[in-house]
Amino acid sequence: MARVSQEHLDARRRQILDGAASCFARNGFHATSMQDVLKEVDLSAGAVYRYFSGKDELIAAIVTEVLDTVRGIFERAALESPPPTPDVLVPRTLTQMRELRPATLDGEWMFPRLMIQVWTETTRNPELAAVLGEGYRSVRVAWGKIVESYKDAGLMPADADADAMARTMIALVQGFATQMALFGGVTEQLLGDGLRALMSVHSAA
Amino acid sequence: MARVSQEHLDARRRQILDGAASCFARNGFHATSMQDVLKEVDLSAGAVYRYFSGKDELIAAIVTEVLDTVRGIFERAALESPPPTPDVLVPRTLTQMRELRPATLDGEWMFPRLMIQVWTETTRNPELAAVLGEGYRSVRVAWGKIVESYKDAGLMPADADADAMARTMIALVQGFATQMALFGGVTEQLLGDGLRALMSVHSAA
Repeated sequence: MARVSQEHLDARRRQILDGAASCFARNGFHATSMQDVLKEVDLSAGAVYRYFSGKDELIAAIVTEVLDTVRGIFERAALESPPPTPDVLVPRTLTQMRELRPATLDGEWMFPRLMIQVWTETTRNPELAAVLGEGYRSVRVAWGKIVESYKDAGLMPADADADAMARTMIALVQGFATQMALFGGVTEQLLGDGLRALMSVHSAA
Repeated sequence: MARVSQEHLDARRRQILDGAASCFARNGFHATSMQDVLKEVDLSAGAVYRYFSGKDELIAAIVTEVLDTVRGIFERAALESPPPTPDVLVPRTLTQMRELRPATLDGEWMFPRLMIQVWTETTRNPELAAVLGEGYRSVRVAWGKIVESYKDAGLMPADADADAMARTMIALVQGFATQMALFGGVTEQLLGDGLRALMSVHSAA
């Protein structure tokens, strides 16, 4: 039997994850069978099950990978001094995600469609909810560090609520991804302009 | 045959819409049958089909009603002089939605769960996508008026991008609803604090 290189194993794993992601984004997790995934990646059952025991493992791996990527982007940003302000950083994060996972579906970026399908499945799959909850906490922590860097650089008041701000920044990405998935034609440029506009509002008091 | 009052008809319609919303929020649109809806509302098929021809009409009616409510809240806010700033207005909108549609599911507010299910269904149902797209446009217009009122009151620069800001505010509500649906424990107070923190950031330039 030929010896299989790690590179080959990684490429095969990548191929399976991307194919499964396409199936889930297109038809939803519920309506996708392992048979659909095998067909999409054009591999035998034996080849696929060597890597993943089933749909649950596939979706957990996809979600973990995405959240690790997002966390990594924010952790690197927190090390910049000062980090880019939200109107720059949030659109940049989406741009980097698009570069890392450029697959399209019906001519639109596939990733936002996948996110929505994952959310729906999360509401009825406690194991996936645990994976997503853990990833969400780690992204909140990463954002919290960015907020501390803003404070250190004097870009915002020391008493601003860092965790509430972290959740708000995550909500923005989630909401923009939703609009991309549902309506299309939403660009990172638009998100940056909107954030700048929001940040320019000052209280009437 | 007894004459049926308009009030009775309205109450019956309300009962069907609320029951269908519960079914959709709990199990998703796809996995819900009209039989499930009849059971939930405890009415005969004849009684229900008198109001709605099927699931598609039910979900379109639910979505239209929700978006009309949101638009109404924003249109009233635009008339205030000046309108409440986003850190007050966005949480208030969620509070008003909660008062108008207080139904719960597993102890959490049901409405965010319903939103996620609607989004998933929207990605594969062109008619629903048209309904949602139209409602989204009308909410964007209403938010645009609020932004103009901010500008008139000198609360933000005249050249800020009103439509980008409108989309950003909608994204925030969508993202917070997502976090409520997936993780629970997210309050309007937190959203207000997060928005205030974000609005306090000033550019390094």
